[in-house]
Order: sequence, then C-alpha cells, then structure tokens
Amino acid sequence: MGNFKGHALPGTFFLIGGLWWAGKYSLCYGTRRNRSLGRLAGKAVQRRLEIVEGSVMLSFSVIGMLAEQFVPDGPQLRLYDYGEHHWDHLMNWQHATMYLFFSLAGATSLAVHLTDVAPLALDRMLLGIAFFTEGFLFLYHLHGRDMLDVHVHQLLLYAIFGGALTAFLEIFHRGNVLVELLRAALSVLQGTWFWQIGFVLYPPAGMAEWDLKDHNNMMFVTMCYCWHFSFALFAVAMVYGTVFWVVRSRLKKTPTMEMGLLKTTEREQESEDEL
Amino acid sequence: MGNFKGHALPGTFFLIGGLWWAGKYSLCYGTRRNRSLGRLAGKAVQRRLEIVEGSVMLSFSVIGMLAEQFVPDGPQLRLYDYGEHHWDHLMNWQHATMYLFFSLAGATSLAVHLTDVAPLALDRMLLGIAFFTEGFLFLYHLHGRDMLDVHVHQLLLYAIFGGALTAFLEIFHRGNVLVELLRAALSVLQGTWFWQIGFVLYPPAGMAEWDLKDHNNMMFVTMCYCWHFSFALFAVAMVYGTVFWVVRSRLKKTPTMEMGLLKTTEREQESEDEL
Amino acid sequence: MGNFKGHALPGTFFLIGGLWWAGKYSLCYGTRRNRSLGRLAGKAVQRRLEIVEGSVMLSFSVIGMLAEQFVPDGPQLRLYDYGEHHWDHLMNWQHATMYLFFSLAGATSLAVHLTDVAPLALDRMLLGIAFFTEGFLFLYHLHGRDMLDVHVHQLLLYAIFGGALTAFLEIFHRGNVLVELLRAALSVLQGTWFWQIGFVLYPPAGMAEWDLKDHNNMMFVTMCYCWHFSFALFAVAMVYGTVFWVVRSRLKKTPTMEMGLLKTTEREQESEDEL
Amino acid sequence: MGNFKGHALPGTFFLIGGLWWAGKYSLCYGTRRNRSLGRLAGKAVQRRLEIVEGSVMLSFSVIGMLAEQFVPDGPQLRLYDYGEHHWDHLMNWQHATMYLFFSLAGATSLAVHLTDVAPLALDRMLLGIAFFTEGFLFLYHLHGRDMLDVHVHQLLLYAIFGGALTAFLEIFHRGNVLVELLRAALSVLQGTWFWQIGFVLYPPAGMAEWDLKDHNNMMFVTMCYCWHFSFALFAVAMVYGTVFWVVRSRLKKTPTMEMGLLKTTEREQESEDEL
Repeated sequence: MGNFKGHALPGTFFLIGGLWWAGKYSLCYGTRRNRSLGRLAGKAVQRRLEIVEGSVMLSFSVIGMLAEQFVPDGPQLRLYDYGEHHWDHLMNWQHATMYLFFSLAGATSLAVHLTDVAPLALDRMLLGIAFFTEGFLFLYHLHGRDMLDVHVHQLLLYAIFGGALTAFLEIFHRGNVLVELLRAALSVLQGTWFWQIGFVLYPPAGMAEWDLKDHNNMMFVTMCYCWHFSFALFAVAMVYGTVFWVVRSRLKKTPTMEMGLLKTTEREQESEDEL
Repeated sequence: MGNFKGHALPGTFFLIGGLWWAGKYSLCYGTRRNRSLGRLAGKAVQRRLEIVEGSVMLSFSVIGMLAEQFVPDGPQLRLYDYGEHHWDHLMNWQHATMYLFFSLAGATSLAVHLTDVAPLALDRMLLGIAFFTEGFLFLYHLHGRDMLDVHVHQLLLYAIFGGALTAFLEIFHRGNVLVELLRAALSVLQGTWFWQIGFVLYPPAGMAEWDLKDHNNMMFVTMCYCWHFSFALFAVAMVYGTVFWVVRSRLKKTPTMEMGLLKTTEREQESEDEL
Repeated sequence: MGNFKGHALPGTFFLIGGLWWAGKYSLCYGTRRNRSLGRLAGKAVQRRLEIVEGSVMLSFSVIGMLAEQFVPDGPQLRLYDYGEHHWDHLMNWQHATMYLFFSLAGATSLAVHLTDVAPLALDRMLLGIAFFTEGFLFLYHLHGRDMLDVHVHQLLLYAIFGGALTAFLEIFHRGNVLVELLRAALSVLQGTWFWQIGFVLYPPAGMAEWDLKDHNNMMFVTMCYCWHFSFALFAVAMVYGTVFWVVRSRLKKTPTMEMGLLKTTEREQESEDEL
Repeated sequence: MGNFKGHALPGTFFLIGGLWWAGKYSLCYGTRRNRSLGRLAGKAVQRRLEIVEGSVMLSFSVIGMLAEQFVPDGPQLRLYDYGEHHWDHLMNWQHATMYLFFSLAGATSLAVHLTDVAPLALDRMLLGIAFFTEGFLFLYHLHGRDMLDVHVHQLLLYAIFGGALTAFLEIFHRGNVLVELLRAALSVLQGTWFWQIGFVLYPPAGMAEWDLKDHNNMMFVTMCYCWHFSFALFAVAMVYGTVFWVVRSRLKKTPTMEMGLLKTTEREQESEDEL
C-alpha cells in the first residue's frame, strides 16, 4: 500500500476508533460516578456498546482482509510465485495478517460479552496482542528505506506499542479511566500520524516533495509528532468533557458529599460485577 | 544439535507442554468458577496435577541432560579438549545447561507441592528463571550466523522471554487465568516455531533450500511467526473451550445469579488457600 | 539556546521545582502521619498547594513559550523559511514544544484540583507525559554532535525519563511518599545537571575548555553525574527532615502506639478521599 | 583495581552479603509463618538484624572509600592532575563513588530502623539506587576493552541490575520472601562472578591465559555464568532449608490446620506493623 490512500485509510479507522473509545469510556466513567442516582442501567448499556464495537471491529477487519487479497493487484490468496521464485505481494499479506489479529480481537470481544464462558479481561489481552502484532510487523518492515521514511514509521511505533501496553495494563487495572483514555489518545495519534505519513511520503500534487535524507526534516517531524500527540490529548479531553457534561446534566447532579459516602459501596459492587 | 531432529525434539516438548498447560489451567479455572456446587475437591486435583507435571518435567530434563552428554558424538562429561586446546562440544553443554534449569524448576515444583516448606510462588519463579536462562543462552548463541538463521532464532526469543515474563508475573498475580493461558500459548508458539526453524534451516530432502540472505525471506518469516502465534492462540482457545464445556456439563450448570452472590466469598477462600 | 544561559535557565527551574516538590510531599506526608491529632485540615492545604503549583507551572510555561518565539533572534511564529527553503529556528520551536506539554500539565492540574470533573490521577499522567515528551525531543536532538556533548545529554535523559516513570507510577500508587520524593530528587538532579552541562559545553571565560572527544572526560562526567545524584538525594533528605521536624514539633507528638491503632482507619479514609 | 585481588575483594563482600540476606530473610519468613505459637518476638529480632546490617554496610563502605583514596598508589583526594592535564586515578574515584552509594544505603537503613522518622521502604529504595549506580558506572566503564573483558563485565551487569530491580520491587511488595531470596541469590551470583572475572582476566601464576578474542571462550563464559547462577540458587536454597528447619524445630511444629485459620489475621497484623 505504498501510496497516499494506503496510509489515509487505516489512519481514518484509528482516528474514528480513538474518538469512539474516548466517548465510550467517558460515558461509562460518567455514569459510574453518577450512578448513585440509580436512573441509568450502566452495565447493560456498556455491554451493548462493547458488542457493537466488537461487531464493527470484526466485520471491518474481515472486509480489510478480503480487500487486501482480492483487489485487482492483490495476491488472490497466492502466497508464492513459483514462476519467478519469489513471495507474491508480501505487503498485502502482511496487512492481511494485521487485520487478522484485529479480527481475532473483535471476535474475542464478542465471545466475552455475548457469553459468560470467557474471562472478562480476555478482550483487552487480545486487543493488546493485536496492537503488538501490528507494531511487530512494522518493526521488521523498514529495512533499507530512506532515513526519513524509517523515522516516521518508527515514530508510529511509539503510538502502536503504547496502545499495546495500555491494553495489557488494563488486564490488571480494568476500568481505570485514565488508562482507557490514554489508549484512546494513542489511537487518535496513530490515526492522524498515518495521515501525516501519507503527506510526507506521498505529497499530493502541487505540494513540495520532502527531502528524505535531510536531518532537519527529521527533527521537524519528531516535533510535529509531539504536536499530533498534544492534539490527540486535546481531542480526547474535548470528547470527555462533552460526554461528562451531557451525562451529568441528564442525570441531575447529586451532591458531592452523598457521593463520597456511597463511593466505596458502589465501587465494590462495580468491581464485583466486573470480575 | 544443528539438524532437523535437534529442533523438532524440543519443539515437540514445548508444544505438548503448552497444550498440557492450556488444559490444566482451563480445568482449574473451570472448577473454580463452578465450585459453588461443591462436588469437586478442586485443590486436591490441582495439587496432583502439579505433582505429575513436576515429575515429568524433572525426569525429562534429566534424561535430556544425560542424552546430551552421552550420545555417541557427545562430550561424555569432558569439558575441555586439552589435546586440541578448545572447548569440547560446547553446544551439547549449552543444551544440557538449559535442561539443568528446567530440571531445577521441576524439582522445585515437587518441593513446593509435596511439602509445606517452600513458599507457593517459588515454582513460578524457577519456571521463569528456566525460561529466562534458555533465552539468555540463545541470545549469546547466534554470533556470526547467516541473517535468516539469526532472525528465526531472534523470533524464538520473543516466545521464550514472553514465557519468562508471564511466569514472573504469576509470582504476583497467581491464579490469573489469562496470564496462565498466555504462557500456554507462548509455549505452543515456541514448540511450533522450533519445527518451523527445522524446516527453514534444514529442509527435508525434496524441499527447496531457503536463501538465508534474502530480505524477502526475512519478511515472510516474520509474518509466518505471527501466523504461528495466531494458531497457538487458536489451539489454546480450543482446549479451553473443550475443557470448560466438559467441566460445566459434568457439574450441572449453576444459575449465574447465585454464582454472582457466592463469588466474593469463594474468591477470598481461594486466595487464602493459595497464599 | 546553545549557550550557557540556555542551560542555566531550565536548570534553575527544575532545581527549584524539585525542592518545592520535596517540601510539598514532605509536608503532606508529615501531616498525614500525624493527623490523629486532628488539628490540621490536611486536604485543604494540600489542594491549595496543588493549585499554586499548577498556576505557576502554567504561567511559567506560557511565558517560556512566548519568550522562545519572540526573543530578538527567535522565529516569531514563522515555521518555514520559504526564501531559503529550510525550517526556521527549529531549536526554538522544539523548546516551545517542551514548554507546551508542561503548560498542558499545569492546566490539567488546575482542572483536576479546581473542579471535580476530571479523575484525580490525571495530573500525574499529564506530568509524566510532559517529562516523557521532553526526553523524547532530546533523544532525537543529538544527531551529529561531539561524543561528550551527546553523552552529557544522554545522562540527562536518565533523570528526565526517571521523572516520567515515577510520575506514571503515581497513577497507580498515588500518595506513596517514596515515589514522590524520588521524583523530587530526579528533578533536582535534572536541574543541577543542566548547570553542569552549561559549564562543560560553554565554560565561562577563564575556565579551561573541555576536550569533547577525550574518553577520560566521558568517564569523569559519568561519575560526576552520580555525585550530582547523591547531592540531589541529600538535598531532598534535608528538606524532608526539616519539614518533618517542623510539622511534628508544631503538632505535638502523638504516642506511637495510639498511631498504630489508628493507622488503618486513617489510611482507608485517606485513600477514599483521594480516589 | 585491574588485578586479581581487586575482583576477589568485592566478590567476597557480595558473596557474604548474599548469604547473610538468604539467612536473614529465611529467618524472618520462618518466624513469621510459625508465629501463631507466639513464642518469638519476631519484630524485635528483625529490627536488630537490620541495624547490624546497616552498621556493617555503612562502616565497610566508609573503609572502602578511604582505602580507595589513601592506598599508596591512590589519588589521595586529588581529582585532577594539573601537571599532566588529566584526571587523576579515575578508577579509584569511580570505586569510591560506588562505595559512597552503598554507604548512603547503610546510613539510610540505620535511619529507618533506629528512628521512626523515615518511611520504612526507604531502605530498599536506597539499596536499589546503590545497585543501580554500581551497574551504571560499570556500564560506562568498558569502552575500548577486549571482547571477552567487555563480555564478562556485561554478564555481571545482569546480576547487578537484577539486584536493583528486586530492591525496587520490594518498595511495593515488601516482605515478599521470594523477591528477597532472589535478591540474595543475585548477590551471591555477583560475588562468585567477581571471582570468576578475576580468574579469567588475571589468571594466577601457573594457569593458562585466556584468549580474550576467541568467540568460543565467550560462549563458554556465558554458559559458565548460568552455572554460577544455578550454584547461587542452590546455596540460597540450602541456607533457607537449614534456617527454616532450625526455626521450626525450635518452635515446635504447629498443626497445619490451625495455621491455616490463623493465617489471614496474622498476615494483616504483619502488614500493619510493616506499613
């Protein structure tokens, strides 16, 4: 997928996914903190959100896998070109492999939230594995490219492995809203950075080409990555603020003091539900 | 052991070991979650499984050590060849050292589960140390080989150090079924990957030789590793599903609601037993 | 900022910041441990300290950003020099980016402690991110410099990433006085080391120039870094001792035994407040 | 200290220290597990052991520092040789710096266990810092040496940083006997490996010189390191077994069942004491 569209597409997915996560976890946290009012059946809504998320992730990944295989210049499930003695469309196969793990994560999420067979944290473990595998494949993907090309992809790895790390952390600290929002922000970052990579490596017609060997470009790009990160944090904060404000205004605000008294009991019940 | 059999043998061990772990931990988790029925003495069975596992690990490791030493072209306990002034059969000694640590892990497991002297988590610590040592020896084992040869062994290190990490995590989070199953999956991965290494480096008669310096081969092999991992996850999931289903159907299903009420109490008692 | 003043200025900030943290956390810990007397409203004071800290951090960072942009030889918000086709004053932009993240951390701290919207640990997460970004930008900042120049900045990274790590740890272990004081010590270390870098790279008139390629200088500098660290630990210990002694003498000492009895209850209440 | 004695001396210290730790923690754990009998005032003994340990560590480190400075060919507190324009006896200064941090750890341990001012876990934090600094100085100590020389010191770093890591872990998991014994084993390993380094780099008269550039030697040495580790584990296990057996036989064995019932209560009280 060495072109602009090939970076814009996954970028859009991760961007939307990150914003969705920001909204979802803000909603769960907001209802949890204001639950003393007892008006919203938090668990049922949360489960439905998880099922929607799992279905979307599964179906998009499967579509992605099929597209990678059956686009006109795709491998059409052929792995080795016996005529010319080389691997056939390795790139497409690699991308399909990445989709495979996200589809596994989606299917697991469905299995966890539709049945009571699998332990709850399994969805996060598979999500962490999906991110890890994505980063792992990128890591061994960069051999022999230009300095700037390698660098922009290495920067991407921070967001990817950061996503994997936060997902793994959630196996042990499930329901920690900070870790969840950090994961959302890293996903937004990954999304916008994919777009940035597209603009750097395949500048649209009319834009200047980047010198892929200039050290100043490398330093600028590093800084630019930090700006993307601050934007991602800002976007997640906006979503959080909006959702939190909506939840609170719809639930009528409970006095803080009463909440303090109720907090421990709720929290226990919450964790009991979750375990 | 630079031949096909030398990779297939440990591969088979790890493969079987991983499947065994998948079964054992699924069984423990299944009986624990359905214990409210009170029909199965979970602890006694679990202890017996641990003792069987420890004995098998100990005996196989001792046999492995002896085999490495006393095969016809082995060192026969001679470490240094004073005639030719070089170390004698260093490879065999290294493999014997790996077996040594697994035999320590087996012996420790027996000591932990047969007596009440040693703290419980010691078995996991020694298992983690055994995996770590295996990876550690591999790490300094690869000097001066071909690119692909180095790469396939480096990939193996992910599975090995992953196994060590999960075992160490269990010192602090014992009984977390996800970590246990992840360890099982990494062990299966290690097993199947040993087989793959055998096929890549020592292709059986009739199969094409691999070009050990081709970068495309390296990229394919990386991707192939991910497929092995997804297979390992799938295999562990199958074992888990089967065992869970058998346990549940044999124990008659308890209503979920009652389980919810009982959960906290059980869990405490469980952790009390385990500490 | 390739000059002495450009290193002395941030050095002074981090030095003062570290000492402030040492004092703040010692005060909080001291009042917490002696609270059984019930004479000091610990939480209110602590909240006011946090707000002061947040305001100072925010205002200084904003001033820093503006200064980097509008100093006479600064970029004046111009990012790209279209005349000469290169990035304009990349250094200033990088430093402004670092300030940006510290201003985000300051603003977040205000949002957390002035409103009840944001989860409490968010201030530590943003602080951790600010340190991480600082280190991240330094990391890709060192290309093509002299050996000693690279080395003194690499040593700095230990203090910076150490600060990030401790801040992230506090997301999960908030209120652990040791982690807080370690962060204070690492900040002091960062401050004094910035001064040291200034002296090494831009020796004031009259002092000998350093040979930036001599390996002995590198070894000395490494050792010197350890001395700075021991000084930082010592300074934090002094602040802690002084504050602790003042708190205790002002609160009249409670008998240790009674404290032992009260401890668990207090602690719970404490963590309840904090959650 | 580039000679045999210079490696044998610290080796002996770490070896004895590791065995002491193995004994101390086994004793504490043994009395804790058998405390239901109520015959041994565990805390008082433990505190006295800590004070002895702190005093010994402090005094030996101070002696070491003085020795490094005032041996006949030492720097005698002179840091820079203005005559010849180079650093004076950098090695001795580095070793003195290592001792400095261990003396800080010893002094802190005394402050923690003699007064009630400092938080308890501070002794482990300073111990971790002492190990870390030792490893840190070794890390930047190896430039330009022969391959095998570098390698044996790199192997040493595993034991040193392992010791630092376990000490840091104990800040959060204090009293976990496994982590304590692992630290003891790593210290024994460090001790015996110092001896091994002495034998490899400065073979006593009559022993063959080692070829410092032979790759086979490097592989042998790696394996040898694992043997040292297994020996260290074995030594710690012996000490643990002996101490545990002595404690139990002197305390008369309590029936296991009663212990099970008492366990939770004790454990809480224990951790309350420790916090």
